[in-house]
Amino acid sequence: MSGSTYGNIFKITTWGESHGKGLGVVIDGCPAGIFLNEEDIQADMDRRKPGVNKYGTKRQEGDKVEIMSGVFEGKTTGTPISLVIFNQDQRSKDYSNICDVFRPGHADYGFEAKYCFRDYRGGGRSSGRETSARVAAGAVARKLLKELGIDINAYTMAIGNVKAENIDMTERFNNPLYMPDKAAAEKASALLDEAIKNCDSIGGIVECKVTGLPAGIGEPVFDKLDSSLAKAIMSIGATKGIEFGDGFIAAESCGSYNNDNFYMSDGIIKKETNHSGGVLGGFSDGADLVFRAAFKPTPSIAQPQKTVNNKGEDIEISIKGRHDPIVVPRAVVVVEAMTALTITDLILMNMSARIDSIKKFYS
Amino acid sequence: MSGSTYGNIFKITTWGESHGKGLGVVIDGCPAGIFLNEEDIQADMDRRKPGVNKYGTKRQEGDKVEIMSGVFEGKTTGTPISLVIFNQDQRSKDYSNICDVFRPGHADYGFEAKYCFRDYRGGGRSSGRETSARVAAGAVARKLLKELGIDINAYTMAIGNVKAENIDMTERFNNPLYMPDKAAAEKASALLDEAIKNCDSIGGIVECKVTGLPAGIGEPVFDKLDSSLAKAIMSIGATKGIEFGDGFIAAESCGSYNNDNFYMSDGIIKKETNHSGGVLGGFSDGADLVFRAAFKPTPSIAQPQKTVNNKGEDIEISIKGRHDPIVVPRAVVVVEAMTALTITDLILMNMSARIDSIKKFYS
Amino acid sequence: MSGSTYGNIFKITTWGESHGKGLGVVIDGCPAGIFLNEEDIQADMDRRKPGVNKYGTKRQEGDKVEIMSGVFEGKTTGTPISLVIFNQDQRSKDYSNICDVFRPGHADYGFEAKYCFRDYRGGGRSSGRETSARVAAGAVARKLLKELGIDINAYTMAIGNVKAENIDMTERFNNPLYMPDKAAAEKASALLDEAIKNCDSIGGIVECKVTGLPAGIGEPVFDKLDSSLAKAIMSIGATKGIEFGDGFIAAESCGSYNNDNFYMSDGIIKKETNHSGGVLGGFSDGADLVFRAAFKPTPSIAQPQKTVNNKGEDIEISIKGRHDPIVVPRAVVVVEAMTALTITDLILMNMSARIDSIKKFYS
Amino acid sequence: MSGSTYGNIFKITTWGESHGKGLGVVIDGCPAGIFLNEEDIQADMDRRKPGVNKYGTKRQEGDKVEIMSGVFEGKTTGTPISLVIFNQDQRSKDYSNICDVFRPGHADYGFEAKYCFRDYRGGGRSSGRETSARVAAGAVARKLLKELGIDINAYTMAIGNVKAENIDMTERFNNPLYMPDKAAAEKASALLDEAIKNCDSIGGIVECKVTGLPAGIGEPVFDKLDSSLAKAIMSIGATKGIEFGDGFIAAESCGSYNNDNFYMSDGIIKKETNHSGGVLGGFSDGADLVFRAAFKPTPSIAQPQKTVNNKGEDIEISIKGRHDPIVVPRAVVVVEAMTALTITDLILMNMSARIDSIKKFYS
Repeated sequence: MSGSTYGNIFKITTWGESHGKGLGVVIDGCPAGIFLNEEDIQADMDRRKPGVNKYGTKRQEGDKVEIMSGVFEGKTTGTPISLVIFNQDQRSKDYSNICDVFRPGHADYGFEAKYCFRDYRGGGRSSGRETSARVAAGAVARKLLKELGIDINAYTMAIGNVKAENIDMTERFNNPLYMPDKAAAEKASALLDEAIKNCDSIGGIVECKVTGLPAGIGEPVFDKLDSSLAKAIMSIGATKGIEFGDGFIAAESCGSYNNDNFYMSDGIIKKETNHSGGVLGGFSDGADLVFRAAFKPTPSIAQPQKTVNNKGEDIEISIKGRHDPIVVPRAVVVVEAMTALTITDLILMNMSARIDSIKKFYS
Repeated sequence: MSGSTYGNIFKITTWGESHGKGLGVVIDGCPAGIFLNEEDIQADMDRRKPGVNKYGTKRQEGDKVEIMSGVFEGKTTGTPISLVIFNQDQRSKDYSNICDVFRPGHADYGFEAKYCFRDYRGGGRSSGRETSARVAAGAVARKLLKELGIDINAYTMAIGNVKAENIDMTERFNNPLYMPDKAAAEKASALLDEAIKNCDSIGGIVECKVTGLPAGIGEPVFDKLDSSLAKAIMSIGATKGIEFGDGFIAAESCGSYNNDNFYMSDGIIKKETNHSGGVLGGFSDGADLVFRAAFKPTPSIAQPQKTVNNKGEDIEISIKGRHDPIVVPRAVVVVEAMTALTITDLILMNMSARIDSIKKFYS
Repeated sequence: MSGSTYGNIFKITTWGESHGKGLGVVIDGCPAGIFLNEEDIQADMDRRKPGVNKYGTKRQEGDKVEIMSGVFEGKTTGTPISLVIFNQDQRSKDYSNICDVFRPGHADYGFEAKYCFRDYRGGGRSSGRETSARVAAGAVARKLLKELGIDINAYTMAIGNVKAENIDMTERFNNPLYMPDKAAAEKASALLDEAIKNCDSIGGIVECKVTGLPAGIGEPVFDKLDSSLAKAIMSIGATKGIEFGDGFIAAESCGSYNNDNFYMSDGIIKKETNHSGGVLGGFSDGADLVFRAAFKPTPSIAQPQKTVNNKGEDIEISIKGRHDPIVVPRAVVVVEAMTALTITDLILMNMSARIDSIKKFYS
Repeated sequence: MSGSTYGNIFKITTWGESHGKGLGVVIDGCPAGIFLNEEDIQADMDRRKPGVNKYGTKRQEGDKVEIMSGVFEGKTTGTPISLVIFNQDQRSKDYSNICDVFRPGHADYGFEAKYCFRDYRGGGRSSGRETSARVAAGAVARKLLKELGIDINAYTMAIGNVKAENIDMTERFNNPLYMPDKAAAEKASALLDEAIKNCDSIGGIVECKVTGLPAGIGEPVFDKLDSSLAKAIMSIGATKGIEFGDGFIAAESCGSYNNDNFYMSDGIIKKETNHSGGVLGGFSDGADLVFRAAFKPTPSIAQPQKTVNNKGEDIEISIKGRHDPIVVPRAVVVVEAMTALTITDLILMNMSARIDSIKKFYS
């Protein structure tokens, strides 16, 4: 499994299991001179942290991040930044009910098929907790992007069949579901209460918007802005789909509707509409970047389920313990993190696109 | 733009513009000993070739592929396989109407923003013709996968709002739209005729199914089976979204419905349902891999459109010439190619997962 | 500085400065099922540790390695192995004499030129202490190679102008210089005592021999066995050269002498001589792999030296503190580590060379 | 063998065998806006071309390079540059004497061990002719570097035991050996005539000097300037060693001698000596970069040699045909090419080192 490194220039490598000594990430290729301290990172960590509301898991993990290297006198040095989140709660637990079982909807069977062996404690590497390292790294990328005026905001667009419709961005911090629509958030809460009562879980949709991105970012033909983001976002556990701009609706549209006309506005090229979601031919097109990701319902449910164990026997399990009935609100900050990491990498990659700017840099 | 290389072990690098001397691909890391000749590749090329039906562009490109290296005495040697498709039709044309214009829905503006300069002939590198190199490389990957019993089939699931519903797989080769539903294909044809009459274009959806894939393929946490495929597919021009299994519908589902129960069948682990689309936690789960990609309508339409030129003036253009009113039927084979390339790479990557198989290999 | 990741399949990422909270490495792509514990790694760490003899720096660092992830029930799981060496001695020191000075022979000026800013404490990232993370990772690679019967041994071939001549391999653990020649080790010790007395330092040569390597390892044309090792070894601080087999002497030889004749021995292909040092055309050739690396004298010397500071003033410094008069004995284990990491990666890469073995793996 | 791609940002992929349809290279990541035509590249190709003097092979290959893509209206576009050298002489030849034989000093055995199968015609991928693709790519990199005032010059420092001693740089273009010392060149010629008469071959040393390189280039800790160059140069066939600055002599030196003192000269930091060869701690140090590479004698000699065949029989062969008695003069331009490619990549990588320059780029 050498898939734990992401990025080309701004490169991250994550490590750690849910129930080991800790988790962490090494950021290599972060430019020197960015002001950075642990509080900058902790702010994002706290948004991901479970237990902040009744729909998050009840474990109080702390998720306290520590900068181990790469920062000196308050600034990044250009050398690798190692961030560690020590697990505070490593009590030996009883996993006898799941250690040899392939839980439906989980990675258990894949791990076993690949390695003939797995760390079954809390899902090991496939635990949602793995994303805490991504969030820590993403917080550093966001600090860099902020210096360039690039801002990333994700929020909950749908929970089950309840969709945010009357969008009010300020509202998203007012409810624990990060939904930018007060009425929808209330309906969604009711839906979740119902799911909990039924020992069930539910899926949802996260939308993400990036503002301030200059045009021309993305490296065709494989490392396009949208293809790179698709990989980044689809690597988050529980994602089942991604779409940019009109997305799947574009598949039903006509070209005369879907094409966004360009026009001049005070000397700046703008688009009348944004069906493209800010990406054309793999490059950013100057408009806001907009995409949505679909998350499946949490696979851990307390209802009895049929499955098999690694002895090849048909069995029945019910997964006890404290599990989120929904991953979406906590996924919001993970989507932002993966977006920040991807855009940062492409922003740095873009710097060598033209000989004139290279000459200017070295003159 | 160093984004023209794709893959880690089975690695391809594509090159070429629509109206230059030719296009091509170098495949590096293809195992030795695979029987390969130009006809093997040409078969896929011909499926992508424009002009095979009235909905494809009328240019007769030929798309004749030539193996330049890496094959000796009918077998791959393990060294790089260079495939070239020489452009046969390089007549000097008149591009004066588009050379300084940013066509709506196209990559023109992105190219200009990044490089301050572009090869405007036929869209240059962002032309649909770029995908011919992917198809050529994909044909080689498919030969390899066939040796392992892995089969990839894509087809048209929807054109505009016409969806294939009564699926009959044999039917998909009977109509020029690659639609596995005769009645739907006829309705879709009528829709396309209407679009052509209106100087308009239309989008659609391609579904892809992979059979024979063993469980455990994929390299978490970033190079998962689904995240890797998402990048591969979303790097095809005109894609706007991708979803696996139930996809966006999973976002509306409950866990008790979405989870696929495992059961034993003659000593083999199977799943009762396949809401996951064959991927769990980033690993293949032994079921068929199923995903869908949304394609936007062809941006080149003959209707007049408002846009700007690179002098910063508001203008109006109508894009003349022969353009497909829909990209989907030709995209079918490109989706198969990118899927084959991605799975081949992950299949080879998976071989070093366990010390016992490494010891066996070297004993 | 995104150069902190090394390897393609067996991939390491190191982090940490000499005087920060610690150093570490993440190993990604280590196969599952290898028995591993902290003692396995500590054994190599202790060989690199300073202060083990009078020619090593006197700081008692401890260099205690901790496994943070990737090992469960005593075996590697296939997920990233994070190793951390916490710095025990982080007392605030007085660096006022070197914080703005470019020490001759050091990386100080390069850091300043690149980043306009550096962590001057103990050399930061360019400290010899950086290699401790390499040694930790190398110990894991060696465990893997041992399972395949591949063994790596490095030793001191020369210190200054004193060369090991009557080679006795058992002898190299009997003297603190790791020299496989008792008489030479005594002469070298005298030379070092003299250097210390003169407030000076001295260079040397490390030779490395790999046994048990099968033929055909290496990935031409760029990732050859020798080119890959050249990069690995030359990335160790203070190296100034590397040569394989006859090396620079081969440049003075005739082909009739330099070519190694093959012959059959009990059904096995062998070579009469080993001028090649076990590598031909970038592949291992079945003979022992042999190379030598030249190390310059430690740049930190107590003698006064002329240099400049970052205000652009000519100044004079003498570098106080406890510095090794020679890096070679401690470099021996680092050379072994980088060799192990490189060979492991190429050994895993080699597994996808032929379709017949891929078919066998998946059948 | 997926080792045919080199570089991170400025990335090349080579392909082609000695006796197939041709050879070539795809350059991905070349910045847009560089003036480039086929003559620019041909000039370097002609320097490498065999048959230019009596010590080169007599085949008249032509080595005519063709630009297939990536250049429009005389300038690079930022998209992949595909360069092809079509083989003009593909006559079917008689290889029956070598097709199943492992020639001493060649890659034959390694190929067979890895792939159980090889293209035996003219050495296939391990032919010296493979370097023509490197030279073509290197010519493009040199054009870029020239825009930044960086110049690369290699020359023959030694042939056998004849060393260039009274260096006169203008002289190197006056003799077919590229030796910057007239008297040495004459002695070396006599030595080569003797070798030819004896059906033998001889080795030599190439030195390379890079001027104009700014300080701070190189990406520690693995992608250092010297480690990256070591890999690049050692990947050229027939190299057996590389050393920077004083190289192996540094291993015999004292620190007080080996350290280069810095001093100020008209506001610029300079060094009194250049024992380091222009690289300290993996970064360029502002002085000329200087390194030497050792090349072994050509392994193809007409003398009878003992070896084995792939049936496992001891045999004797003499390798007929026209072979250079020495590779060094033709290697000179290959060394320059690999140096140019490596430095270009590191120069581009360096652009994202500091947040202040990133902000300036995007403002």
